[in-house]
Amino acid sequence: MVKVKIIGAGGFGGVGAVELLTRHPEAEIVCLQDITDIGTPISALYPHLAGYCDLEIVDGEGQRAKEPVDVVFLATPDGVGMKIAPQYIDAGVKVIDYSGDFRFDSQEDYAEYAGRIGRDKVHASSALLEQSVYGLTELHRGDINRDRMIVGNPGCFAVSCLLALAPAAAKRLIEPRSIICDCKTGVSGAGKKPNAAFHYPARYEMMNAYRLTGHQHVCEIERELSLLAGQSVVITFTAQVVPVCRGIMSSVYADLKSPTKGEELVDAYREYYTDEPFVRVLDRKAVVGSMHVRGTNRCLLVVDVDERVNRLRVISYIDNLVKGQAGSAVQNMNRLFGLEESTGFTAPSQYP
Amino acid sequence: MVKVKIIGAGGFGGVGAVELLTRHPEAEIVCLQDITDIGTPISALYPHLAGYCDLEIVDGEGQRAKEPVDVVFLATPDGVGMKIAPQYIDAGVKVIDYSGDFRFDSQEDYAEYAGRIGRDKVHASSALLEQSVYGLTELHRGDINRDRMIVGNPGCFAVSCLLALAPAAAKRLIEPRSIICDCKTGVSGAGKKPNAAFHYPARYEMMNAYRLTGHQHVCEIERELSLLAGQSVVITFTAQVVPVCRGIMSSVYADLKSPTKGEELVDAYREYYTDEPFVRVLDRKAVVGSMHVRGTNRCLLVVDVDERVNRLRVISYIDNLVKGQAGSAVQNMNRLFGLEESTGFTAPSQYP
Amino acid sequence: MVKVKIIGAGGFGGVGAVELLTRHPEAEIVCLQDITDIGTPISALYPHLAGYCDLEIVDGEGQRAKEPVDVVFLATPDGVGMKIAPQYIDAGVKVIDYSGDFRFDSQEDYAEYAGRIGRDKVHASSALLEQSVYGLTELHRGDINRDRMIVGNPGCFAVSCLLALAPAAAKRLIEPRSIICDCKTGVSGAGKKPNAAFHYPARYEMMNAYRLTGHQHVCEIERELSLLAGQSVVITFTAQVVPVCRGIMSSVYADLKSPTKGEELVDAYREYYTDEPFVRVLDRKAVVGSMHVRGTNRCLLVVDVDERVNRLRVISYIDNLVKGQAGSAVQNMNRLFGLEESTGFTAPSQYP
Amino acid sequence: MVKVKIIGAGGFGGVGAVELLTRHPEAEIVCLQDITDIGTPISALYPHLAGYCDLEIVDGEGQRAKEPVDVVFLATPDGVGMKIAPQYIDAGVKVIDYSGDFRFDSQEDYAEYAGRIGRDKVHASSALLEQSVYGLTELHRGDINRDRMIVGNPGCFAVSCLLALAPAAAKRLIEPRSIICDCKTGVSGAGKKPNAAFHYPARYEMMNAYRLTGHQHVCEIERELSLLAGQSVVITFTAQVVPVCRGIMSSVYADLKSPTKGEELVDAYREYYTDEPFVRVLDRKAVVGSMHVRGTNRCLLVVDVDERVNRLRVISYIDNLVKGQAGSAVQNMNRLFGLEESTGFTAPSQYP
Repeated sequence: MVKVKIIGAGGFGGVGAVELLTRHPEAEIVCLQDITDIGTPISALYPHLAGYCDLEIVDGEGQRAKEPVDVVFLATPDGVGMKIAPQYIDAGVKVIDYSGDFRFDSQEDYAEYAGRIGRDKVHASSALLEQSVYGLTELHRGDINRDRMIVGNPGCFAVSCLLALAPAAAKRLIEPRSIICDCKTGVSGAGKKPNAAFHYPARYEMMNAYRLTGHQHVCEIERELSLLAGQSVVITFTAQVVPVCRGIMSSVYADLKSPTKGEELVDAYREYYTDEPFVRVLDRKAVVGSMHVRGTNRCLLVVDVDERVNRLRVISYIDNLVKGQAGSAVQNMNRLFGLEESTGFTAPSQYP
Repeated sequence: MVKVKIIGAGGFGGVGAVELLTRHPEAEIVCLQDITDIGTPISALYPHLAGYCDLEIVDGEGQRAKEPVDVVFLATPDGVGMKIAPQYIDAGVKVIDYSGDFRFDSQEDYAEYAGRIGRDKVHASSALLEQSVYGLTELHRGDINRDRMIVGNPGCFAVSCLLALAPAAAKRLIEPRSIICDCKTGVSGAGKKPNAAFHYPARYEMMNAYRLTGHQHVCEIERELSLLAGQSVVITFTAQVVPVCRGIMSSVYADLKSPTKGEELVDAYREYYTDEPFVRVLDRKAVVGSMHVRGTNRCLLVVDVDERVNRLRVISYIDNLVKGQAGSAVQNMNRLFGLEESTGFTAPSQYP
Repeated sequence: MVKVKIIGAGGFGGVGAVELLTRHPEAEIVCLQDITDIGTPISALYPHLAGYCDLEIVDGEGQRAKEPVDVVFLATPDGVGMKIAPQYIDAGVKVIDYSGDFRFDSQEDYAEYAGRIGRDKVHASSALLEQSVYGLTELHRGDINRDRMIVGNPGCFAVSCLLALAPAAAKRLIEPRSIICDCKTGVSGAGKKPNAAFHYPARYEMMNAYRLTGHQHVCEIERELSLLAGQSVVITFTAQVVPVCRGIMSSVYADLKSPTKGEELVDAYREYYTDEPFVRVLDRKAVVGSMHVRGTNRCLLVVDVDERVNRLRVISYIDNLVKGQAGSAVQNMNRLFGLEESTGFTAPSQYP
Repeated sequence: MVKVKIIGAGGFGGVGAVELLTRHPEAEIVCLQDITDIGTPISALYPHLAGYCDLEIVDGEGQRAKEPVDVVFLATPDGVGMKIAPQYIDAGVKVIDYSGDFRFDSQEDYAEYAGRIGRDKVHASSALLEQSVYGLTELHRGDINRDRMIVGNPGCFAVSCLLALAPAAAKRLIEPRSIICDCKTGVSGAGKKPNAAFHYPARYEMMNAYRLTGHQHVCEIERELSLLAGQSVVITFTAQVVPVCRGIMSSVYADLKSPTKGEELVDAYREYYTDEPFVRVLDRKAVVGSMHVRGTNRCLLVVDVDERVNRLRVISYIDNLVKGQAGSAVQNMNRLFGLEESTGFTAPSQYP
């Protein structure tokens, strides 16, 4: 059994991990840590967990927080992981960090990201950056293994866009400066904390674009696409919120280098994602949407070419809280401990 | 392994059973039958099931429909079960019927119900009525066992109201003609078929009461309460729909026969429901709601007395598609085959 | 032209008044006052008002706040009106207060209310209590007139329940201790300020009862019903929130003193509300709901008797932000200045 | 007073016109015609209209349908207007058609559109095509005047995209084959008729792209942009549905021909739309969304350049039922009768 501690357990990212790990046959949650609600059972905060996980939330000081674990999930905001990861790694505990702290290989790359989110550009544990791997399993599977100590779990928008573009980028099918990612997220992506923009009366009929001046997920998308394409990729990225709770629908566009039929592109994507347990490639006639991945670790890709202008169009659907966060974390955990990658994802979600 | 066939597999009641049974360690779905979508895999109708259950839907004629099973779930509307149940029972196959067809013990009781829903008052298999048991497990556990061949699964409103009132009725605490059940349901209770009242634009901001002239679930609620109370019970029942997908919130009221403190009533309810795996009794200070039972087989009861007028007030929360339908069916199946009653309910639901 | 100042202009209650007054042919908004967003045009806070009302929000100190007005709308929380009303009344300016500050006639009645909401039981302007009138126009029309200086605008739940019960109480048809008010409100009733309970992800599928220990609107409902019935009335009141933005659906129940047919009760209600511009009485077969009063100053009443137990049941629908708040305020303003009561309500709302 | 008949009065497009015209000081509805609900007052179908418009719906045969009118709104699906428009025009009655029947100048253009929607490519009244004008007032104001007899009201997606792109196209700023329109609509765009895709349980958490094989509004967008740009424009268009009732958010992208700053583009748009009563140009820092145009005839444009790749990005917000349909129709009516263009739009909408 993999012994797991979750830090930041009381947020949506933490509770998402609790839900997945309580049904995971090879994992055991031994500690839930946070900075609020200390002493409260997680099942008092989230009554649906009662009987499944009733651990009390602890702070970092007590005995419970010192119990030995194999892996710690850092479901914490930017800036936290870089401070506490070293102590775990030094103690031989693997780290899966949800924030942007460990998504970059170098101090330089991190600095660009930090600038976008208004944080100190100096990484507090820059030595760890080289040890970390970007945790989009489908792109870095080979580097997420028993020898790896730390994973930077990807951003939710980045998961949806990268899975939508990776085959085309890797196969050098698209113009590197022609890419547009038009992304729509559900409200849960903003987390548990109330906010004027996500107050029910202000949101129930509200669609809006936000942060047009630059979204932080752009850094990791461009970095990964550039790696895949073998040349510098620059994207236009639009973040939008619509009144659903869970889900991301990203529509991505790019100019194709040479005339391509829709079916050819579908075939290319299917080949690229052969044997992927969580990615499913569909053609333009598919009738699917975000509810079909809700609660799951899956990504649905509707792959299409606008043949009149030879432009790739892919619609990508994920659940921002699962494949976009806790699900990817568990998928990564499975690999870090040599388990079958889909372990723990054996039950379907519920519809409607 | 219990071999299961589901008839009416393509509706919400059928797919709810598929979701629960695919995660059930002792059950195996061997046949999905319906009258539409023949030849279509259930996972084409419901893409979230892909990889978990990909059986094709069959009609009642082919080879697949003839394969031996241990139990059949009749997720079918009123009038279907009474026609097809006998053939299964004669063949030694147990039957769990979702409709009102087998919720009554006698032709007389059935006739009253049939009149309310505008159906023929003559039951097509009246001989089976005596063999059937009303499938609210918490009230009839002793009669739902290995020897039983047929269960009439309860109506969703009835589940919420009966669990809210059973302790008070059984303990003879309330006046039998003072009971009011004010019930609010989510839209999924109306099933999968589109309808003007449940069209998104007509519903997203719509609350309304309906069928004030008489709701069919009243019959079974009054029958069960009368049995518990040992005297004739007559209720006032109001059905209302609000724009949620899943959930029932029933507020029930009744005059208490003698002055009672809120805490006393809470204690009485807790005693009555001792050891119940799916019922949880809370006092008036509890901060809970329908989202806390969403996707689960649980019932939350907030038990209270308005001491100024000595009136019982209980707020009852269930998921209409689980404890109100497929979950109760699986709970009953577990008992019919001598399994632990909570088998298959080992994973938490997902929030938010 | 009636010159109007709105204090608390930036909240939902303030903006609701702005919307109604900009389309009112006999009123003119001359000042919008608040304690936040000073200097911001109301149309920057609420872009839908751009071009219709672009006044800047001012604090109480500047020149603008001193301009002469005929009436001030106090769209402010409990405790504010009692402090600032006297200065306006002394200056000959009429006051319409949204809070509970002026809903009571006496210091004693106020004290009970203040206790429920945890405020100081001593009213800061108790001398004004006698001068104030309870502003449910349909019940106190005669006292809301040109001679009146101050109105205590009613609570939203109270509007829905009192209109549902007034005819039965006034005609002495119901048992005074048998009344139950089961009320469901939309989220906008809680105002503009974000809150964990009204965060979109926590609310979109959430129904729940709250404040079972006692809701403050009970005081005014019982007081008014007692006045109408000529005897002491005690009610059981349940407040519930469901995921709609606008609307209240209250289901009220009471034992009828003598056997009554449904049609008789409908007739009695229709007689009582003859010529009321905003109340419409329907029988149990009506197919209506909260969307049909959305954005309007109307109350729809579905009047019914459960004849088996001789119990009155009325379903009452209002828009909590209009008839439950700003609409009643404008209706009262019309009366205070001798205008036709429905002035300014000449356009239909929008559906869906 | 302009006397108006509405055909197709019972649908969302019809009722939207009724709402706007009842508040219009220079218009009078004299006849509501449809093919269903004959004899039913519109206020029985839509109770919010009671007291504002209680006309009975008539068929085309009776006396009422023969009363003289000045203009007829054809709130009817494709194929209806082309059959009945001639009789009105011959009688000197102006026609505003909501469908695609009169959006095209020539039989050739119509045939392409008809092919996309699977209709007969031969127009039943092709002689009228030359007489008709495309009714996006902002683009064809000069041709929508007292002399004009027939207007082809624009498609809702087309309104949002054309207003977003017209200045850039007219000023020849963008590459004509680089345009992408990523559009998200609320559910009311699909009309009143229930449908599996818009059933509340299937929609409340559902985002999806649809009709990727080709949306019919592409024809009119390309035709208008080509006219503006003076060269052939080909767009990539993606239609998506999200769970809001009202609203369209279109994000449009195009490559700029020469390096352009964001502020320059904002200025160019503001100049183009100087004095437009219903279009408002904002820069990338604006915090706005679909709720801010809800219920109004306005279009909000957030104008931006992704300067790293020199790509135009405009986010366009409209209410699909107002500016996208009935509001544009009334705006056109105003022009057809020489009224001030914004007549009847004098009241703000309601928020939230």
